[in-house]
Amino acid sequence: MSDAGNYTAAQISEFIRDALASAGMPAGDAAKVAGLMADADLNGSDGHGIFRLPGYLKRIESGGLNLTPDIRIERERPGMALVNGDNAQGHLVMSYCAETAIEKAKTTGVAWVGAHHSNHAGPANLYAKMPLAHDMIGLYVAIGNANHLPPWGGLEMLLSTNPIAIAVPALDRPDVVLDMATTVAAYGKVKTAAQRGEQMPEGWMMGRDGNPLTDPAKADEGFLLPIGGAKGYGLALMFGLLAGTLNGAAFGKDVVDFNADFETTTNTGQFIVAVDIAAFGDVDGFKRQVDRVVDQMKGSPTLPGFDEVLLPGEQSHKKRVDREANGIPLHASLMKALNATADEFNIARLDQR
Amino acid sequence: MSDAGNYTAAQISEFIRDALASAGMPAGDAAKVAGLMADADLNGSDGHGIFRLPGYLKRIESGGLNLTPDIRIERERPGMALVNGDNAQGHLVMSYCAETAIEKAKTTGVAWVGAHHSNHAGPANLYAKMPLAHDMIGLYVAIGNANHLPPWGGLEMLLSTNPIAIAVPALDRPDVVLDMATTVAAYGKVKTAAQRGEQMPEGWMMGRDGNPLTDPAKADEGFLLPIGGAKGYGLALMFGLLAGTLNGAAFGKDVVDFNADFETTTNTGQFIVAVDIAAFGDVDGFKRQVDRVVDQMKGSPTLPGFDEVLLPGEQSHKKRVDREANGIPLHASLMKALNATADEFNIARLDQR
Repeated sequence: MSDAGNYTAAQISEFIRDALASAGMPAGDAAKVAGLMADADLNGSDGHGIFRLPGYLKRIESGGLNLTPDIRIERERPGMALVNGDNAQGHLVMSYCAETAIEKAKTTGVAWVGAHHSNHAGPANLYAKMPLAHDMIGLYVAIGNANHLPPWGGLEMLLSTNPIAIAVPALDRPDVVLDMATTVAAYGKVKTAAQRGEQMPEGWMMGRDGNPLTDPAKADEGFLLPIGGAKGYGLALMFGLLAGTLNGAAFGKDVVDFNADFETTTNTGQFIVAVDIAAFGDVDGFKRQVDRVVDQMKGSPTLPGFDEVLLPGEQSHKKRVDREANGIPLHASLMKALNATADEFNIARLDQR
Repeated sequence: MSDAGNYTAAQISEFIRDALASAGMPAGDAAKVAGLMADADLNGSDGHGIFRLPGYLKRIESGGLNLTPDIRIERERPGMALVNGDNAQGHLVMSYCAETAIEKAKTTGVAWVGAHHSNHAGPANLYAKMPLAHDMIGLYVAIGNANHLPPWGGLEMLLSTNPIAIAVPALDRPDVVLDMATTVAAYGKVKTAAQRGEQMPEGWMMGRDGNPLTDPAKADEGFLLPIGGAKGYGLALMFGLLAGTLNGAAFGKDVVDFNADFETTTNTGQFIVAVDIAAFGDVDGFKRQVDRVVDQMKGSPTLPGFDEVLLPGEQSHKKRVDREANGIPLHASLMKALNATADEFNIARLDQR
């Protein structure tokens, strides 16, 4: 299957908003979630934008999401807060957490806000980037919503991809934004490959027999591989303790597979750290140094087989520029699912907008 | 060459203390640095303990280290501080930073303390573990003191191994302590292999021609490989921006190769974050959950070829228990270097203590 045309971020956002509202989400919340999901698509996070809408709607229909949540600070000190997401859509919880961290960091210089009773919130970079507008650095870690990774040397899938994103502002260059899973491939990429009927390269997954697994339709028969072997496992574990256990959120055996179970409260954990650059020194001076680092990396001679050195977030930035001009391409298999969604929720199809 | 006997941590600590004091370091500082270096050896960080003494002494003799530093807070807010290490030995700077972070976190819940004008401080886990005694989680990131890593796809060595350590306290199980470089192998391991005349496995380093490099004596002709390819590069870069650029410390082309240049001020950057568990909830309840996670991981069936699942820090913990009982084994090549040190600084050799 192939592309089914390009759509603007506004078209995608309005489609998501209407679908969520039709499923019962209050209008303001639906618009906020839709805007963030469309932003994920603009940024090239194809596995975390409108692609997720059918799954989110299924959770709402199954009663697995609280549509009238009381998202609130449960515990706090000047440099931290623990937020209870009251089982709201993760985008709402993590926006609240990011705003809280930014507000606190204005006074304390650094603030760490964790959440429990949250849900899947889309790509990690969405939240790590929120402090940038306030001349702050953002750091975000999440517990993945399904365990696809065993501990190193083990067979039982007790860990998720537990991603980290770090966003650092530049002056004249694009901001530097890392967004990575602790596994070689994020599970969203496996899901996307499965939907498109594509094979995976060796190294993404391993079967329980220890052999490479390349058919995404058989993903249930194997597990993801961590980066750097034991090191990626170590990162996934520590991020899980920080984003999950510390917040009183699910980790290990308690993680609910949100691709298989649409009813049980996931008690997802995430945290965000905001670092106010002005607390450390001159903001423009810092950004100028970031530009200098970027230029040093870009100026490196390349290895055979490489055209250029890329900075973290550079490909996403290029995609955003292209998609803002030319729209967001949607795969035919995704369009088919979205048309079914439109019909089910009695809203206009994307190609009728 | 082989082992040259075992020595107690006290013997090693006193040897280091006497050598540093003989080189001109004030007695109190020499004892503090020596204690931390011996602790690194106890913990199995063989590339970061007494192994480093000859290099440290050479820097002191070359005038590259400030022996009477004024380590001080240069900027601060309730949740952060920027410490000027005044070109002191890194162990002194980072102990000060850890103490500052712990003290601040008692009030703010979370505190982040960065340093510039610091120096090599030994293994990352030393500092990440300091908050544990206060029922806090520790997180430590450092700029490595020599660039051995190009940006992904590049040839110019602009990055170091930039390690991260995260320490989380358990209740009845050993504390969970991750300490990892962003490269497949830390450069200390390359140096240790070179001193011992051993070959390296494929995957640690690559030559400038793109082929594997396995002879540590030729390490200068190639570079380290990052974990997970572009991901490890991304982590090394972001950690560099956070531990270096944000603190006004050296990063990129400004990093001084402390293995080749013993005179120039390194302006090393590091940071530590202390997270007070009590701010998030009940401390014992948290630790009990950590034990539960540990038991889940240990309880996983194993892949063919693996006897058991290990937790981050578990091997170090076993080494510590063994070495506290049986002493720390020193390699004959290291003993030879230490005997030369003893003679040069007119102190008793290790085997005379």
